[in-house]
Amino acid sequence: MIDAQSEVRLRQHLTLVAMGKAAADTALRVGHLLDVATRTWLDDQEIIIKGDRIAYVGPAGSYPGTVARREHRPDLWAVPGLGEVHKHIESSHLTPEWEAALVLPRGNTWTCEASHEFSNVNGARTVDFWMTARQNGSPLKIFPLPGSAVPPTAYEHGGGWLGHDEQKRFMGDSLMVAGLDEVMDWPAVWDAGNGSHQRLWGMIEATFAARGVVEGHAAGIRDLPTINAFAAAGMASDHEAWTAEEFWDKLRHGLFMELRVHSMPDVLKGLLERGLDDWSQIAFATDDRSASETLQKGATDHNVRTAIEAGLKPEIAIQCVTINPARHMRLTPWVGSIAPGRFADVVLLSDLEAFRIAEVWADGRQVSDGTRYIGPVPAIAWPKWATDTVHVGGSLAAEDFAIPAAPGRETMTAAVLRPFHWADDFLTYELPVRDGQVQRDTSRNITKFAIVDRFSNRKAVSRMFWVGTGPGTPDCAVACSLGHDKHNIWCVGSSDEAMAIAVNALGEIGGGWALVQDKKVVATVHYEVAGLMSCRSAEDLDADMQALYARAAEIEWMYEPTFSPRWSPGFPERLAFATLTCSPWRWVLVAPSPLAPEGLVNVQTGQTHPVVW
Amino acid sequence: MIDAQSEVRLRQHLTLVAMGKAAADTALRVGHLLDVATRTWLDDQEIIIKGDRIAYVGPAGSYPGTVARREHRPDLWAVPGLGEVHKHIESSHLTPEWEAALVLPRGNTWTCEASHEFSNVNGARTVDFWMTARQNGSPLKIFPLPGSAVPPTAYEHGGGWLGHDEQKRFMGDSLMVAGLDEVMDWPAVWDAGNGSHQRLWGMIEATFAARGVVEGHAAGIRDLPTINAFAAAGMASDHEAWTAEEFWDKLRHGLFMELRVHSMPDVLKGLLERGLDDWSQIAFATDDRSASETLQKGATDHNVRTAIEAGLKPEIAIQCVTINPARHMRLTPWVGSIAPGRFADVVLLSDLEAFRIAEVWADGRQVSDGTRYIGPVPAIAWPKWATDTVHVGGSLAAEDFAIPAAPGRETMTAAVLRPFHWADDFLTYELPVRDGQVQRDTSRNITKFAIVDRFSNRKAVSRMFWVGTGPGTPDCAVACSLGHDKHNIWCVGSSDEAMAIAVNALGEIGGGWALVQDKKVVATVHYEVAGLMSCRSAEDLDADMQALYARAAEIEWMYEPTFSPRWSPGFPERLAFATLTCSPWRWVLVAPSPLAPEGLVNVQTGQTHPVVW
Repeated sequence: MIDAQSEVRLRQHLTLVAMGKAAADTALRVGHLLDVATRTWLDDQEIIIKGDRIAYVGPAGSYPGTVARREHRPDLWAVPGLGEVHKHIESSHLTPEWEAALVLPRGNTWTCEASHEFSNVNGARTVDFWMTARQNGSPLKIFPLPGSAVPPTAYEHGGGWLGHDEQKRFMGDSLMVAGLDEVMDWPAVWDAGNGSHQRLWGMIEATFAARGVVEGHAAGIRDLPTINAFAAAGMASDHEAWTAEEFWDKLRHGLFMELRVHSMPDVLKGLLERGLDDWSQIAFATDDRSASETLQKGATDHNVRTAIEAGLKPEIAIQCVTINPARHMRLTPWVGSIAPGRFADVVLLSDLEAFRIAEVWADGRQVSDGTRYIGPVPAIAWPKWATDTVHVGGSLAAEDFAIPAAPGRETMTAAVLRPFHWADDFLTYELPVRDGQVQRDTSRNITKFAIVDRFSNRKAVSRMFWVGTGPGTPDCAVACSLGHDKHNIWCVGSSDEAMAIAVNALGEIGGGWALVQDKKVVATVHYEVAGLMSCRSAEDLDADMQALYARAAEIEWMYEPTFSPRWSPGFPERLAFATLTCSPWRWVLVAPSPLAPEGLVNVQTGQTHPVVW
Repeated sequence: MIDAQSEVRLRQHLTLVAMGKAAADTALRVGHLLDVATRTWLDDQEIIIKGDRIAYVGPAGSYPGTVARREHRPDLWAVPGLGEVHKHIESSHLTPEWEAALVLPRGNTWTCEASHEFSNVNGARTVDFWMTARQNGSPLKIFPLPGSAVPPTAYEHGGGWLGHDEQKRFMGDSLMVAGLDEVMDWPAVWDAGNGSHQRLWGMIEATFAARGVVEGHAAGIRDLPTINAFAAAGMASDHEAWTAEEFWDKLRHGLFMELRVHSMPDVLKGLLERGLDDWSQIAFATDDRSASETLQKGATDHNVRTAIEAGLKPEIAIQCVTINPARHMRLTPWVGSIAPGRFADVVLLSDLEAFRIAEVWADGRQVSDGTRYIGPVPAIAWPKWATDTVHVGGSLAAEDFAIPAAPGRETMTAAVLRPFHWADDFLTYELPVRDGQVQRDTSRNITKFAIVDRFSNRKAVSRMFWVGTGPGTPDCAVACSLGHDKHNIWCVGSSDEAMAIAVNALGEIGGGWALVQDKKVVATVHYEVAGLMSCRSAEDLDADMQALYARAAEIEWMYEPTFSPRWSPGFPERLAFATLTCSPWRWVLVAPSPLAPEGLVNVQTGQTHPVVW
């Protein structure tokens, strides 16, 4: 942990080690070492380590003191431990100690945790949660940024409420709290009438007051006046640019730009074409990546490889995950370079151009051999406040998902959404009525979608019709407690009964995924921590996910293309993101709330609408 | 002033202006605009200003809102207001409102004030002092960093004592306090037995705790172990590298490097020869520059011009005084780029390569026409705590400067120093005795030097013999209340009586310079604020300095070369720096103090020695 008092004690001793007046633990001698401050290589260097810090760096043999242990890697290339400037560890679906075991062998030794998800489940405990693994000895440094959108919009509730006083406390709790996580509810930023306006600016004020960084999220902001407004508000960054033009415009308006891997090929090509020569205001961001995808592709190392493949010099790509994000997040005394005083986190490459990792060191010890993690995974008994987070209020029945028709009607008009529907208006369909209830219409790809409040124990369900997603096979449903941004339970199903069964299953396992086929639960995946994460290895979790996918493949899934390029046919895993309410979302379904009793609300305007009429 | 609460109010409104939903004050349309984030130029841009901030930047005509006033400079090149990463405004010898009038027309719109000098005169008031001019409407943004060396060493006292609690209060007083000024007493950093050790680390701790920047001063540190130790201690920067090799070594060990103009030609040549491609960890620093020299050469603009002449691209040179120092000092939300939310500080160049300034804007208004300042100079009645700072304790007489001999001796051995004497030992000379007192020896260039305590009202004087400086002409003396680091009065003279007259003159005028010729005061310069600065224009002060130099030219001055390349024959103005006690100084003369009753002390070891024996 980093706190000012222990920093002082530690650094007082470190100066003596650096000068050879006190003994060092380890000398790690490497063939080549990248100095990210000058973007130059040094040959045959020794990194002198005391405890978890670097005490000295210099040519092999130059250190004047005594060293307990010497390691020599003449053929490897040492670069600093890689950092994540903006990542939701929740999206790995692993608790932090298991996230560490997954990402450390892939070079990622420090992470600015964008704690939007956990904050929305238990706002008050968000910093405690992210500190726990490190306090128990995990080598991954997590720098939490409490969520700015708790609740995500004024139309959602439950799980906590974070405002000025809460953020003031967080910033005071630990120096590891770097600032405020992505300000995404930007309608609330400039609309004084928005119910989140004061709450949000209170958090911004508390962050400014503690010299923290206010992270931005400018999704969909592409016109110059709004880009200007976003920067003028004091947002320090954005990670939501999809095209080179958008990225360039934002970079040129004072925003530190965080580039995600799916936009990387296009954006880097565009930046290189524009002749960009100064990359110091750019970092790479993982944002969301599941453990399964990380096992396949990699963690931060995958981002670096993708950048190199897109034509960026390896050294610049490495700066984009080391010194650049460290400087932006004001963490340079601790991470981002192989330099004295910093954590002894070093990635050793066997091939620079291919960015092939041979070993990773963290806290002064080797923690990986290839992609095999050999460091500690502390056994953490996560407390009740972290594990007991699904409170639906009892067993749900089919009628909880019914949508009643007006008396005497044979059809009703329905407000219909589809995944990633960013139009100003919802769609409308005329749907049949049977037994007094409005019905699905599989022939037109229309099924039912629900949000179940999992915080307030009151069996509160919002439901409506969606198009282009969900099971086509009868009596199937999928439910999940991971549902951005509020992380209520969402459920899509071809019968109300199947939906009830799926949601009830989640209540029993404490969160995760539940798949129902022919009115039976056929697969579950446990996210027993906060309904978002699981306390086990990535491999174990992935095995469950693969089993889920395999069962899901037996079901027919409806599909229509949408605006999002990442929306694909098959099992609709990305529905977990299709419940987002942050901008640029407009019409969304939220759990019943005072400002949106039926759940259908335009989060940019606050307008509500019946789901059928 | 910057505080979190008013930032919020201001930025809330600024977002509306950016989007054209609220009216702007001024559109400043420019022919070319430098975006320092990408190091690229944009043509024909408009900068939309509201109050003292930038609301919008975009192509001319793109702003959607209404603007009260439009200005057009089609032929000028706009770059951000220039920043000083490390400057002692005290060394201009102007109070902050007059510093503003001097440096703003020279492009310098914001300064990280290294408040070592004022802090040593009145430590408790150091932040109040630097805030006053801005509070009264001065357009120069001063970001004070309280002095870390107050007192400079454990062997000095008076004027205040700054430790953990004081720094904690300063960091909490204002967001404009950026951190801790240069840690220069580095023997105290790694010697737990040094009397300043705990005080200094207490300040470092308080700075870390408030997420501030701990500035370094690694003068004389050139070997790798000590460079490593300095960085390991948590020092973020250095500005004391004299050669390219030293600069390079420090840059490569995680120190942000601040380059002073006198080292610039050599260092830049060396960096360019090494092929340095990433300049993001480098800024330019003025450190100390008198008003007279600024009038001749320039302020920050002089630094930029010198860099361009040394072969650096103008755009990189500009980054070294804009975004680079702003990022290092964590001030990017406010200064360092022409971008929304930042202060509307713009330098308009008529010639980029020559860095010729046509106009400077600050706080959204034009404040200079060429080098003529047309902005406000608030009339400030500096309070007594700032002006009443010379407390010698009464009129001194010749005998206060006498050095008694031991009874019956015809000669005595004297410990002798010379200006910028950095050897491990002092020099020794055998000096004649007359009337029971040890005598000067002009034939060997030996005269008498004294330090008079100006804080404690107890007529406390240290005196000893110095070689190679001071008046050769009989009955002359010069005294000054500007004497780094403690800023007691120093005096050098060819008779004890002349010395007493000179010091007494300073007591009467409240600080400054006093020149005595033939036992008469023939010139004075008033530094009536803190004994360091004068509350008037640079031109007026310079006129007095020129009068002083003219009178001084009538006196013969002894001279011997020393280690310092900046030590020249003639009037010994730089004696004000030859009383430094920060590292790498060893033997120095300080005012009598409990740990050094006679004043002669080795500040690296704490050893004291009689001045004669």
